[in-house]
Amino acid sequence: MEIIKPRTLSGFMELLPGKQIRFEKMAEILRQTYASYGFAPLDTPAIEDAQILLAKGGGETEKQIYRFTKGDSDLALRFDLTVPLAKYVALHYNDLAFPFRRFQISKVYRGERAQRGRFREFYQADIDVIGDGKLDILNEAEIPAIIYKVFRGFGLTRFQIRVNNRKVLSGFYAMLGLEEKSGDIMRTVDKLEKIGAEKVKALLMEEGLEEAQAEEVLRFTAIRGTNAQVIAALEGYTGKNELFDQGLEELKAVTKNLAAFGVPESNFAVDLTIARGLDYYTGTVYETALLDYPEIGSVCSGGRYDNLAGYYIEKALPGVGISIGLTRLFYVLDEQGLLNPQLPCAPADALVLPMTADPAPAIALAETLRSGGLRVQLYCENKKFKQKMAYANKLEVPFAVLLGEDEIRENLCSVKNMTTGEQVKLPPREAADYIRAALERENGPVILEAQA
Amino acid sequence: MEIIKPRTLSGFMELLPGKQIRFEKMAEILRQTYASYGFAPLDTPAIEDAQILLAKGGGETEKQIYRFTKGDSDLALRFDLTVPLAKYVALHYNDLAFPFRRFQISKVYRGERAQRGRFREFYQADIDVIGDGKLDILNEAEIPAIIYKVFRGFGLTRFQIRVNNRKVLSGFYAMLGLEEKSGDIMRTVDKLEKIGAEKVKALLMEEGLEEAQAEEVLRFTAIRGTNAQVIAALEGYTGKNELFDQGLEELKAVTKNLAAFGVPESNFAVDLTIARGLDYYTGTVYETALLDYPEIGSVCSGGRYDNLAGYYIEKALPGVGISIGLTRLFYVLDEQGLLNPQLPCAPADALVLPMTADPAPAIALAETLRSGGLRVQLYCENKKFKQKMAYANKLEVPFAVLLGEDEIRENLCSVKNMTTGEQVKLPPREAADYIRAALERENGPVILEAQA
Repeated sequence: MEIIKPRTLSGFMELLPGKQIRFEKMAEILRQTYASYGFAPLDTPAIEDAQILLAKGGGETEKQIYRFTKGDSDLALRFDLTVPLAKYVALHYNDLAFPFRRFQISKVYRGERAQRGRFREFYQADIDVIGDGKLDILNEAEIPAIIYKVFRGFGLTRFQIRVNNRKVLSGFYAMLGLEEKSGDIMRTVDKLEKIGAEKVKALLMEEGLEEAQAEEVLRFTAIRGTNAQVIAALEGYTGKNELFDQGLEELKAVTKNLAAFGVPESNFAVDLTIARGLDYYTGTVYETALLDYPEIGSVCSGGRYDNLAGYYIEKALPGVGISIGLTRLFYVLDEQGLLNPQLPCAPADALVLPMTADPAPAIALAETLRSGGLRVQLYCENKKFKQKMAYANKLEVPFAVLLGEDEIRENLCSVKNMTTGEQVKLPPREAADYIRAALERENGPVILEAQA
Repeated sequence: MEIIKPRTLSGFMELLPGKQIRFEKMAEILRQTYASYGFAPLDTPAIEDAQILLAKGGGETEKQIYRFTKGDSDLALRFDLTVPLAKYVALHYNDLAFPFRRFQISKVYRGERAQRGRFREFYQADIDVIGDGKLDILNEAEIPAIIYKVFRGFGLTRFQIRVNNRKVLSGFYAMLGLEEKSGDIMRTVDKLEKIGAEKVKALLMEEGLEEAQAEEVLRFTAIRGTNAQVIAALEGYTGKNELFDQGLEELKAVTKNLAAFGVPESNFAVDLTIARGLDYYTGTVYETALLDYPEIGSVCSGGRYDNLAGYYIEKALPGVGISIGLTRLFYVLDEQGLLNPQLPCAPADALVLPMTADPAPAIALAETLRSGGLRVQLYCENKKFKQKMAYANKLEVPFAVLLGEDEIRENLCSVKNMTTGEQVKLPPREAADYIRAALERENGPVILEAQA
């Protein structure tokens, strides 16, 4: 037979088992955390009618999309989870209870130019709360609590959730007589961290701002301090523009209950440089930075929007949502060496090694250990002891459980800690408890930050 | 704005939240059970190089596949999880420990003609054990135990795992001088349940069997009885064909340790009519029937194969695996009304309703309940009490937790059972325990079989 050289497409992540298990742990933390806030799981098709997916049309999206025909159908792979959500909510409007809270952790597809650390297939982990007609600001205040729980769940502490409000920005630009240029200015200011203040100023002037205006914009975005200090500084601008005042009230509402929501001030900042490029957002906007890796950019972004599904239904459906690019986040954390090497990542907690011709006692032992809550692989091959142990080592299984004639006669099994080499004889049920207890001690976080 | 009518493509499952939560529970049972036997989770790309995916080429597969180009790339969506596994094992051969055990629960794509209950995008939930050069028969004996655990986990009891061995069939046909026709005969006999013995006999004779041969084949496949009886009947044929004898030894090995593996005889049968259409299989074959719904056909099938990845690598990689078509299984169980209606399927265990202007105490209460292990939605909208309760009802949340001035003063909260209407005042931590205990009582299986 002629051999076809196997390969995986570039830009598509495919992990070895040990890494995959870590990835699954992160996905599980996301599922658990999102569910703990009452978000319903959602699973929409990866393929949609291209007309529907591209209702908004134009731009980069259309170039990157995977689009194809099958029979008469014009199809496309989803490039985010927001457009499918909009379709879903419009389609099932009558069957949903609003506010509708859903999470979705699914793959999306973008045929970007292949580049290190850029993926063409990647997981997004999104939550959104959709209101029918109205949605209270309290929903926006709750979002940082969820982001905080997720990142702490991963094992991270050195991160900061940065929040701003686009009404504050738009209102401020209006004060300078620049309401027309509001979108452009936001997109330019958004580059501040990347290109620095001087270049932003030059860009703003290219866009038609007078030098004084550009400086005023930069002075405004340079406001720094504790949340209370930033808000106090903003209070100085009130009474001049209604939109600004409304945005400031919202920003205050979002920051006010942080303590009740369990978010420490050290993980949260009002940051007037945050604008988010997308025109989509209308109020609160969020970004999340890993403090030791600013070059990574935001690892969890989102915001408030006023009209989710306007292309599909004549209803005002305001919402707030965030998205985590899980595949890229995992890739980056791994690249930075932050995956906890101590975390047990074998596919089994214990490998049962039958040492007798009749496998029946070992089969029963494996079942007993499973009923004690362990993941147990029964080693089925007829190999020499040395080869069995070599397999256990390659698998990096934390415990091997040996069952020979002696053990069977005594109703015991020999539990070998593969890390320490320590070996004890125990009755099967006690062996399960013993292994479980040992693993619980080792059960650290997925991510291990470098000690400062 | 012009409205585009939202729709989901036909043949693509998209569930409402209550159903989705049930679906997720089934997926979780699969993940947990597969993991408990030491299978590693695997996640391969949905898109592969079309040349690689179609290495085997030809036939129905190529017609059904979603194939498209992007730039210069000839791409295709996976149509099963076996071909991507073969690629994965060949590609990562040096990094894997053999036997390599993996599970994958992922969507696959087949552009079949749209038909009720047929899906173009559907989940397969597969396990495979891959050996390097050799793989012991004990692996094949373990598979029924895993199938049994999965279906019992779903809540089913009225199912039967049917097992046969293709060497027994091929060996028997060889005894009749029909080894050349072995594959054709198996495919025809496979139709026995669908079209009956008379038609199978006619078909066999069309394929060139003499009437006596056709009758002999039917007599053989008609062997019935307990596992011991069927095997005793097969013993009568031994000594005439080596392949047959080998197959019978394997069949005996697979049935011998069922009790040790925890599989009751009532859920298992040696069934000589099972052949599986695919030429792929070389030894043990499995099908699983729901006894009250024979029309559904097999809901979990698989078998032993001798060469997984021959298209991609010059190594003999024998394996054994099974596949559950989860999307179709869920659809069918739902159609038959077997989804447990009592199972709590709300996105939250409790809905916290703030009854005061300041939401801070309710926010803190929701956090306390979450730390007590509950999924808790904080109701954020400023609505009248009646509307809040209407939302709780529409969400089908089992408990509402009310927090008014009185409760705040007393450090209590009012827990309302939304099913019984019962309401009690409790301190927040006790409220979490109370709700958790109540939900545990209600936590039945996903599937509820009709009482016989």
